[in-house]
Amino acid sequence: MATTFTLKASCPDQVGIIAAISGLIAEHGASITEASQHSDPLTGHFFMRYEIAASDLPFGKAGFEQSLRPLAQRFGMDWTVSSSATPCRVLVLVSRQDHCLADLLYRWRRRDFIFELVGVVSNHDDLRADVERIGLPYHHVPVTPEGRADAFARIEQLFQDYRADVMVLARYMQILPADLCARLPHRIINIHHSFLPSFVGANPYRQAYERGVKIIGATCHYVTEELDAGPIIEQDVMRVHHGDSVERMVALGRDVERAVLARGLRYHVQDRVLVHGNKTVVFP
Amino acid sequence: MATTFTLKASCPDQVGIIAAISGLIAEHGASITEASQHSDPLTGHFFMRYEIAASDLPFGKAGFEQSLRPLAQRFGMDWTVSSSATPCRVLVLVSRQDHCLADLLYRWRRRDFIFELVGVVSNHDDLRADVERIGLPYHHVPVTPEGRADAFARIEQLFQDYRADVMVLARYMQILPADLCARLPHRIINIHHSFLPSFVGANPYRQAYERGVKIIGATCHYVTEELDAGPIIEQDVMRVHHGDSVERMVALGRDVERAVLARGLRYHVQDRVLVHGNKTVVFP
Amino acid sequence: MATTFTLKASCPDQVGIIAAISGLIAEHGASITEASQHSDPLTGHFFMRYEIAASDLPFGKAGFEQSLRPLAQRFGMDWTVSSSATPCRVLVLVSRQDHCLADLLYRWRRRDFIFELVGVVSNHDDLRADVERIGLPYHHVPVTPEGRADAFARIEQLFQDYRADVMVLARYMQILPADLCARLPHRIINIHHSFLPSFVGANPYRQAYERGVKIIGATCHYVTEELDAGPIIEQDVMRVHHGDSVERMVALGRDVERAVLARGLRYHVQDRVLVHGNKTVVFP
Amino acid sequence: MATTFTLKASCPDQVGIIAAISGLIAEHGASITEASQHSDPLTGHFFMRYEIAASDLPFGKAGFEQSLRPLAQRFGMDWTVSSSATPCRVLVLVSRQDHCLADLLYRWRRRDFIFELVGVVSNHDDLRADVERIGLPYHHVPVTPEGRADAFARIEQLFQDYRADVMVLARYMQILPADLCARLPHRIINIHHSFLPSFVGANPYRQAYERGVKIIGATCHYVTEELDAGPIIEQDVMRVHHGDSVERMVALGRDVERAVLARGLRYHVQDRVLVHGNKTVVFP
Repeated sequence: MATTFTLKASCPDQVGIIAAISGLIAEHGASITEASQHSDPLTGHFFMRYEIAASDLPFGKAGFEQSLRPLAQRFGMDWTVSSSATPCRVLVLVSRQDHCLADLLYRWRRRDFIFELVGVVSNHDDLRADVERIGLPYHHVPVTPEGRADAFARIEQLFQDYRADVMVLARYMQILPADLCARLPHRIINIHHSFLPSFVGANPYRQAYERGVKIIGATCHYVTEELDAGPIIEQDVMRVHHGDSVERMVALGRDVERAVLARGLRYHVQDRVLVHGNKTVVFP
Repeated sequence: MATTFTLKASCPDQVGIIAAISGLIAEHGASITEASQHSDPLTGHFFMRYEIAASDLPFGKAGFEQSLRPLAQRFGMDWTVSSSATPCRVLVLVSRQDHCLADLLYRWRRRDFIFELVGVVSNHDDLRADVERIGLPYHHVPVTPEGRADAFARIEQLFQDYRADVMVLARYMQILPADLCARLPHRIINIHHSFLPSFVGANPYRQAYERGVKIIGATCHYVTEELDAGPIIEQDVMRVHHGDSVERMVALGRDVERAVLARGLRYHVQDRVLVHGNKTVVFP
Repeated sequence: MATTFTLKASCPDQVGIIAAISGLIAEHGASITEASQHSDPLTGHFFMRYEIAASDLPFGKAGFEQSLRPLAQRFGMDWTVSSSATPCRVLVLVSRQDHCLADLLYRWRRRDFIFELVGVVSNHDDLRADVERIGLPYHHVPVTPEGRADAFARIEQLFQDYRADVMVLARYMQILPADLCARLPHRIINIHHSFLPSFVGANPYRQAYERGVKIIGATCHYVTEELDAGPIIEQDVMRVHHGDSVERMVALGRDVERAVLARGLRYHVQDRVLVHGNKTVVFP
Repeated sequence: MATTFTLKASCPDQVGIIAAISGLIAEHGASITEASQHSDPLTGHFFMRYEIAASDLPFGKAGFEQSLRPLAQRFGMDWTVSSSATPCRVLVLVSRQDHCLADLLYRWRRRDFIFELVGVVSNHDDLRADVERIGLPYHHVPVTPEGRADAFARIEQLFQDYRADVMVLARYMQILPADLCARLPHRIINIHHSFLPSFVGANPYRQAYERGVKIIGATCHYVTEELDAGPIIEQDVMRVHHGDSVERMVALGRDVERAVLARGLRYHVQDRVLVHGNKTVVFP
């Protein structure tokens, strides 16, 4: 597959942004193979994502960034360029339940979408065999009340050592320290097993069962210091009925969770998510 | 269409309930044209709904009830029999927005499902012409801070005068007095414009917009003294995206609201809803 | 609401289209309030839709078209500009079933989205009162085997007399003459009561019932000379189960049909649909 | 988990079936933990499924069958009793694509629902390692034009040797011989990668792409002699848009396929599917 550069940018809206950026790309003779823009009339903020055929350009990623810098400065842009030749590096955290992990492993091996799974960290040792037999490193980092700070320091170190770009909480049943969340903004993705903001916190399926809802869901979101309150990337739902026990809802929910996490992660690694305040713009 | 009797019953579960009830019906030589049962393993409660071909029976509704009484007593049943020849009488309350009302009026006129719309009550006079021109009575009952008690006394009187079976809050923007709710348990149906328990209270679409959810919904529920917390009858959802303003979400939401209310009301008037505690069993 | 111009254009893809068009708009100092583009890698075709704040421009719609013409010629564009100040004029054709008509009348009256409903044509006289009492003209044009050609000549004349932009077949149970379809390409919208290409032709719900499908649907598409084979604008589905009779499926289907037609028509009147070959690009 | 017996039965409808069956079960003092019935008014056929707490009964499965036989004969029932203590034995056939296989392997290992995966057969050798490393037998049975009859004789022999109850075509890209299909009625389950009856046959995603549909789907059905025309067990769909290439639709479709197959297989192994003519009654 041909290499593409993805430019993701946002800034206060004004006349001429699209013209300036697309004009610069056209000057270099490059095709825009996918273009998305959004202007938020309420906040007056502008968002864009362009995929550009890299081979059309007379220079590489660094050169492209160099050429964009003056415009980015002029418009006050928050921007990044990524190359499809350097896949996003993903570190997965998991506890004992592995339906999301198994799904991510499958998608990674079969290249359902392109990312680099660099390793798995767990507070239990249960899933070591399944992970190691496909050649991935597995780190057992127990989290005890007194060893909590050390455990997360270890995890952050692993994240650095692997040069990971994003940490995925694939049903990781521990709450991350606030300062770790603050150091990795929009770089930690969680799958919450409810249709947020319904049923924040523990045992959402039991809460859903007791409230008697007719539909359950899952939410993929960025982790912030406030529990289950970060920017939502993707959600989906599934119908349940009075005959479904909590256990059946948990089982049905597993299918929604893995699907929503996979979609959310795909959007993230393909640079389709732009965060503004506590909300996301997703160009699917 | 041939007349059917609908038996709706619930009681503590025990061996032999289905056998006893279906045996009695078979003794009278009557066909069960639709049969639904549910046993809740957690609460040990049993729920059933039978539709019976009325013409097979050697007696009318009262006679059928008479013949069921001993069994009902033996099993400690909470039960009702209704006849398709006597449609459920519905009083609709509405404020200024009429998408749910217009939908109910259409379904009533076209007999999408069978119920008797007896009248419309509103705290505004705006919709009088639309209601009266199809031959339905319209009652303007303003609700002012000081006249609140009188207004709801008037509404309850109308409900009694019309011998209404159920009151439908079709986007009625007033909170009903707690004592009125208590006097009409499972006889007041509300459509809430969010996917409860998310976004209880006012302006749910604005709340949803600000939280950045990717899916919005609506909830049809019985009204209890606690706001937006009564037993849920039906829910549905619709996908939204970052480009949808609050106004667009409100417009999209109207379609979900009317659909969910219509389904919920159909379940109710066809005696498909059994309430237990704060949850419903719905046999669709 | 402020006036916007909508530019809809498609052409063979090449470097610099976005730059040229957005550059021109920026030169005139105008904001692009909504921008959508799509490049089809298979056909090498490019599609765009821009909404522009009209008041920013130093000229009106004609002046804007004038200024675009050279670029449109250079890129070989198929293009139109429309103004939100001149709503799309819609002529509705209907037979005896009025669920889609009633829904369109409601949306038109309540300005759910903006279009101009100019009149209703039917091969039956049944719905006259409902249409006339809200002040719309109703034309009863019977279609008999021998009078078919005359009837459709009459209908085409009405379409011209009303200066209608689009003809909507809202469950109009007649097949239009091929030459009429050919004269109004992408200007006749039909709602088909199945999930096309399943169940082309008559009685799709009976076909669906007999095939035992678990999901039914509806399809909104442009009418072409080949029956039920024109470009699809929008589709949606609904779950059914073994207890649903053909009649129940027809009733459930009505809700999907009216929703899909309303969405499809909204996309059309807001110039969100671009046709290429037998497929559509829809910028929702 | 306590053992349950599942009685699945269908017969021409008449007064007293439920009473007789539930009466017999009550006589033996046994609880019915789940009860489903359906009467088809069109065909006059009756369908039922009862789950019974086995430990309540004074005899085992054979004794239960013995006690039911007279009633079954009287009503002309087509019936089976299965025990949750003897899980359904499943033989999976696969070609090169393994998303459905991987999903079934995962569900089997994690006991998402209970069935006995006895082995995997493939016309290619590609997936041997993945299957064998979790301890399952893998049979490579190539299918060549001249060796076709032998290959399917071999497969049928494996099915017999494993005492399999059901054969699952998990994206098995070969058409089964008609006589094999005829010998195993309602015992071969296929996942078809389209929303049948749309896009029968090869390359359904390409067909869907070319027709420009807005929604794609998958269908789980019993295999009959006529290709893709057997009784449908389950279907589901997913929205696509103009930006989705055939390759993207194939990828999105994989998620629907595995979900629909898993649900269909669960319904089958839990005896929730009753076939009548070319349609199914599913008690979910």
